[in-house]
Amino acid sequence: MTTSAQQTWTTTPTDPDGWVARAREVAALLATDAVARDRAGATPHAEVALLKDAGLVTLLGPPEHGGGGQNWTTAYRVIREVAAGDGSIGQLIGYHYLWAWAARLVATPEQVAAVEERATRERWFFGGAVNPRDNDLVITDEGDEIVFTGRKSFSTGSKVSDVTVLEGVLEGTDKHVFAIVPSNQDGIVFNDDWDNLGQRLTESGSVEVRGVRVPWEQAAGYVGKEFRPRTYNTLNVPLIQLVFTNFYLGIAKGALATATAYTRERTRPWPYGGDNKESASEEFHVLETYGDLQAKLWAAEALAERAAGLIELINDHPDEVTERERGEAAVVIAAAKQRAVDTGLEIGTRIFEVTGARASANAVGLDIFWRNIRTHSLHDPIAYKRAEVGRYALLGEVPEPTWYT
Amino acid sequence: MTTSAQQTWTTTPTDPDGWVARAREVAALLATDAVARDRAGATPHAEVALLKDAGLVTLLGPPEHGGGGQNWTTAYRVIREVAAGDGSIGQLIGYHYLWAWAARLVATPEQVAAVEERATRERWFFGGAVNPRDNDLVITDEGDEIVFTGRKSFSTGSKVSDVTVLEGVLEGTDKHVFAIVPSNQDGIVFNDDWDNLGQRLTESGSVEVRGVRVPWEQAAGYVGKEFRPRTYNTLNVPLIQLVFTNFYLGIAKGALATATAYTRERTRPWPYGGDNKESASEEFHVLETYGDLQAKLWAAEALAERAAGLIELINDHPDEVTERERGEAAVVIAAAKQRAVDTGLEIGTRIFEVTGARASANAVGLDIFWRNIRTHSLHDPIAYKRAEVGRYALLGEVPEPTWYT
Amino acid sequence: MTTSAQQTWTTTPTDPDGWVARAREVAALLATDAVARDRAGATPHAEVALLKDAGLVTLLGPPEHGGGGQNWTTAYRVIREVAAGDGSIGQLIGYHYLWAWAARLVATPEQVAAVEERATRERWFFGGAVNPRDNDLVITDEGDEIVFTGRKSFSTGSKVSDVTVLEGVLEGTDKHVFAIVPSNQDGIVFNDDWDNLGQRLTESGSVEVRGVRVPWEQAAGYVGKEFRPRTYNTLNVPLIQLVFTNFYLGIAKGALATATAYTRERTRPWPYGGDNKESASEEFHVLETYGDLQAKLWAAEALAERAAGLIELINDHPDEVTERERGEAAVVIAAAKQRAVDTGLEIGTRIFEVTGARASANAVGLDIFWRNIRTHSLHDPIAYKRAEVGRYALLGEVPEPTWYT
Amino acid sequence: MTTSAQQTWTTTPTDPDGWVARAREVAALLATDAVARDRAGATPHAEVALLKDAGLVTLLGPPEHGGGGQNWTTAYRVIREVAAGDGSIGQLIGYHYLWAWAARLVATPEQVAAVEERATRERWFFGGAVNPRDNDLVITDEGDEIVFTGRKSFSTGSKVSDVTVLEGVLEGTDKHVFAIVPSNQDGIVFNDDWDNLGQRLTESGSVEVRGVRVPWEQAAGYVGKEFRPRTYNTLNVPLIQLVFTNFYLGIAKGALATATAYTRERTRPWPYGGDNKESASEEFHVLETYGDLQAKLWAAEALAERAAGLIELINDHPDEVTERERGEAAVVIAAAKQRAVDTGLEIGTRIFEVTGARASANAVGLDIFWRNIRTHSLHDPIAYKRAEVGRYALLGEVPEPTWYT
Repeated sequence: MTTSAQQTWTTTPTDPDGWVARAREVAALLATDAVARDRAGATPHAEVALLKDAGLVTLLGPPEHGGGGQNWTTAYRVIREVAAGDGSIGQLIGYHYLWAWAARLVATPEQVAAVEERATRERWFFGGAVNPRDNDLVITDEGDEIVFTGRKSFSTGSKVSDVTVLEGVLEGTDKHVFAIVPSNQDGIVFNDDWDNLGQRLTESGSVEVRGVRVPWEQAAGYVGKEFRPRTYNTLNVPLIQLVFTNFYLGIAKGALATATAYTRERTRPWPYGGDNKESASEEFHVLETYGDLQAKLWAAEALAERAAGLIELINDHPDEVTERERGEAAVVIAAAKQRAVDTGLEIGTRIFEVTGARASANAVGLDIFWRNIRTHSLHDPIAYKRAEVGRYALLGEVPEPTWYT
Repeated sequence: MTTSAQQTWTTTPTDPDGWVARAREVAALLATDAVARDRAGATPHAEVALLKDAGLVTLLGPPEHGGGGQNWTTAYRVIREVAAGDGSIGQLIGYHYLWAWAARLVATPEQVAAVEERATRERWFFGGAVNPRDNDLVITDEGDEIVFTGRKSFSTGSKVSDVTVLEGVLEGTDKHVFAIVPSNQDGIVFNDDWDNLGQRLTESGSVEVRGVRVPWEQAAGYVGKEFRPRTYNTLNVPLIQLVFTNFYLGIAKGALATATAYTRERTRPWPYGGDNKESASEEFHVLETYGDLQAKLWAAEALAERAAGLIELINDHPDEVTERERGEAAVVIAAAKQRAVDTGLEIGTRIFEVTGARASANAVGLDIFWRNIRTHSLHDPIAYKRAEVGRYALLGEVPEPTWYT
Repeated sequence: MTTSAQQTWTTTPTDPDGWVARAREVAALLATDAVARDRAGATPHAEVALLKDAGLVTLLGPPEHGGGGQNWTTAYRVIREVAAGDGSIGQLIGYHYLWAWAARLVATPEQVAAVEERATRERWFFGGAVNPRDNDLVITDEGDEIVFTGRKSFSTGSKVSDVTVLEGVLEGTDKHVFAIVPSNQDGIVFNDDWDNLGQRLTESGSVEVRGVRVPWEQAAGYVGKEFRPRTYNTLNVPLIQLVFTNFYLGIAKGALATATAYTRERTRPWPYGGDNKESASEEFHVLETYGDLQAKLWAAEALAERAAGLIELINDHPDEVTERERGEAAVVIAAAKQRAVDTGLEIGTRIFEVTGARASANAVGLDIFWRNIRTHSLHDPIAYKRAEVGRYALLGEVPEPTWYT
Repeated sequence: MTTSAQQTWTTTPTDPDGWVARAREVAALLATDAVARDRAGATPHAEVALLKDAGLVTLLGPPEHGGGGQNWTTAYRVIREVAAGDGSIGQLIGYHYLWAWAARLVATPEQVAAVEERATRERWFFGGAVNPRDNDLVITDEGDEIVFTGRKSFSTGSKVSDVTVLEGVLEGTDKHVFAIVPSNQDGIVFNDDWDNLGQRLTESGSVEVRGVRVPWEQAAGYVGKEFRPRTYNTLNVPLIQLVFTNFYLGIAKGALATATAYTRERTRPWPYGGDNKESASEEFHVLETYGDLQAKLWAAEALAERAAGLIELINDHPDEVTERERGEAAVVIAAAKQRAVDTGLEIGTRIFEVTGARASANAVGLDIFWRNIRTHSLHDPIAYKRAEVGRYALLGEVPEPTWYT
């Protein structure tokens, strides 16, 4: 990614539109060699540096410490734009926002203030080794410190990050503890075993955690070794599910952008009886297909925007979030995710029909979009997301908060 | 509709949410006998009276004359709510808003002021006999007056209206002229020949126009017998296409509301191996189906909301609307319409699968939703709406304004 | 149905193609006023007489008694053709074949011989009041006779039949008994309460059974008051599910035939930029839509034909049918049914898009196809048919025989 | 492919079922390392040897020369089975059958007899460099010989074949000439530039043809330098389109087989409220999805079988084929192809949803099915196949024969 390495920005956007435009510039750089980097499977150090240079890493950070001071609505739009250029990097920035926000979700006010200042000033890029579905990191209480030991199957972004959010269970209890630790330390060993169909540059492989020590006072949300729960704690799942949704939408948008450019520039018209067109762009089925796909994508995006709005409402009063509010946001996000996945897979498949046989050459790489969405959208079964929305539509019930989906 | 006849409101809503709530009350009244009235095919005089009583007819009218002073975003939401109770009445109020707004689109400032005052103070309900696809009303110029003569194939709502918007072509020219005339006059004869599958109470039959006289000064937008065109004139098609979209969405919403109530209250669970459920509402396929349909409907609604936002942007500066702005709004509306139609038809068909065999009884009348959407969504072929959006997505081109679609 | 009353045939087809052609002639007669008769809801006495005159009622009967001597493959094709002309009558003839075959499924060889001779010679039309899901007919054992008393929710065709297959449970036991009784007797009272969305002429209303007496020797399959079970007994459900499938396919075929004729003869081409067509039949989206629908229908028909072949294999050795054979046929039939329902509903909905707005007039009646398939396809939930096929595809398991689905 | 190299068969199947079973054995061998070979992109010499050993290469050859003497129906089933094991090899054997049959389509009886004897006795594997859409091979007439010179963009299988069917245009004319030439000769240079998304082992790269000389008497169908046309000549397109259809179906079948095995053996059940299942194979959405996919696949296969039957009818009288017969077969094949492509893509995408997130690992390679179908199904636009079927359904017209689609 030679080009991007040379890019530097001398100004900072001042409003949401400016940030989205900045993300679009980043995406354009990423898109130039997204397929080649996907093939190479190279660790995205340069790409993370690009995100830092562009100011996107500190988008949510407090302005007084040099952050962008934006809200999640802007963050989601930025994720979408970045993912349109490179789905993997869109996932990385999205997960980063979630991990960086984790402090606000579970930590004490003092912890939050401390983390936000350092993370923003030092432009930390966050990774995570968090997967509450498996109890695979054990924490031992050693007086003033806790010590994490074990293995996580997935640790998205951690390898290219400055800090990693660890999550484990306190030995002999069912208490989950989150803590932020330096990613580059002997106690964290990356297995480099992420070799999957798509989202190949997300560094999502497994990680060994060997005695990572954290002072008790950095155990997020713990005071005197006791956790202080509130409903806002459980917003992490809706937040991350909407992160997923937005990078799926971004990938789908990138697919349409790439395909339409190909059709305009390279697709040959097909001979058809006495009604041949001079250009593939005038063939009726081509126009109808693009129109169908674009309409579906706009609808999914609009629902994602509505879901972001519900998040903002909650963020306006994090200390008084009700379970119902949290649940209704989760349901709308579940719906948005369904539409993003269905639409993204359809776009990833059908773009070939309007670009033509030669577009299946690996030199074109038009499959990256289907691969990326297909891979990540399996994170948790969409069928259960449908059932969740159905339960709300039919019975008015909202889902129980869990740590995973 | 005994119940509704007794309803009177003593207060006037003061904000958009209040108006939407009011519309929901109206819808609840309409829903109680929507199927029975559809079967009877009775002319909806009482229903129009209800709309007047509720204040919905003057929703867009200037507050200084007693109107609600709301914008189109609210109007579209009101249409959706009313249509959820009764698709035909949703169409009537939607068309009414368009005809009532027609003055603002094409008339001179003086004409607009005069019409808005009278229409609001006298709570006019508007019908129309406008179909620029066919040149079937001829206008003769008789000095100070113009005279309309001919036949219109469709005259939605005119029969239950106070005034009718007539549209014709000035003899010997290609000039279209619009004018507002009293609906109840000898020169307008309703043929009562609307006998179609759905939207049965819209009074959409043909009409004979026999020498309806209008002073030249009431020919909308004409000054000295010359028309003064501007881009805002051509917004009528996007406005009405988004009216369509919203009553389709409303009908689909009504379908889901009716079906979920039926499933909860009446559907029997189906025996399934050793995994029988105690209630149909616990069957996985039932939950998944409702979740899928609800997600699709929310996405379509969100896109319709986005489209309404574009209309508001245009309405902020009607005198400086550019063709590009107008065109981009039209494209997003075309996309929203596609999603509304596809989703509405799917909901109208699949609700039966989650309500069960007995829900096919005519006493239940669950087919009214499919019939209503299927019928009106043929107004102009959705395939060309797809192509329109496709042309924008692929080539960045916006549609040429026309008088019809 | 004046026309059909006058029709008489002087020859008898001698091979399957001849019978299918005969069925097509019957269908053409039925189609002329199918919509009008559906609206009128008139009891189809004349239509049953037509089926008798055409020889279709005795299609499966032994040639030595004047029957057609055909197999089920031909019967299914005949059902398809008749249903293409009139879905209700297709259902009636299909159910008739099943009830007429019921003797062969459950009765003793002597009973079979007796029934087939009389039924064929006297051209009995069969109805049924059989619904083993509800135990609503009670049978009392009165020595030499059994007596049926109770109520059946559905009694398809019984009212226009010569004989009715009754099914009930012997008091104090869980033994189901089937018997053939004259339909026209004081003990059978039709409630004429079938008022549903579609298949309106099937006379599927409820029936009161008040002390209908049957000699024990006519209790099908009973010898000395003991039932003699064999696997072939349980073929009734696959046979009738494939009957359903075939009349759905027939209805869908009728829909395409009716719609294509309308498009050719009446649909106006739509103006489209500089690429207007002279005829709607040259519009690309029209051709593509019809091609998509036709391809899907052909595929569903081909699977139904394959399923019929499995039935023939079983009928070649009814006394040695294995549960596996029976189960695999049931699975393929379940698959064929899914394809028929999905395809039929899609055809019933999308034909409007290629015929245009005026085709929604009730004078055209193009909705009859969607109504007919939508109504009957709810007989048992298609979701469980999918699961049944899925269980076979995934685990190799075949469904347990039941009396209902 | 170590295993397969060791396999030898000592018997020859004697009936169609035997040949299909043989193909299934071959497929099982191929499937063991299909993903690994796809990744390696190795030239499939061993696989072609396996096809020869199994007797599949000479399946259509005359028994008197050692061939299988089977018809196309069997050949299509064999293609399906082989493709279920390895889509690329399924394509190779399918193209081989077409090239081997090409003589019968266009050559003179004497040429046919000579080719069939040698091809069968010597177990020739056929490749082709035939693409009449581009006139890119020029033939010069040098008296007794013709000489081919130029470049073909695609030459499927040629590199691993014994003989290649060349097609070119006689200089200064519009006459297409086909001839069979040895593949291994200096005048044929393979560019090894097939690097596409799927069907990666088909050796479909471009080829340079540098002065390949053929005696005039081997110019297929030419007598005295004049071509003798008949309708049967034009059957090549339907034959190859049905070859396509069958290897798509085979790939889809392989996808279902691979996925169901994975679900049974490796997919973990998903926690779901109080209704957790012990096995993923008991989750309702898993069963429903597999049932839906299997039903669709069976329907598409059944239509392909029907299409094969039409080919057999034509092959019964190749010298009297009418254009109508040929055209109706082409239409049914076009329909079968649509169903195969739609179904195959859906299966290739949705199997991931019922195998789960870990099935996206490249070690599993479950994407090969989508890649294979997606790539080849772009050969010619399916939209025009839909229009072709639509034109028949709507207007009764059959497509004009062409050399390409």
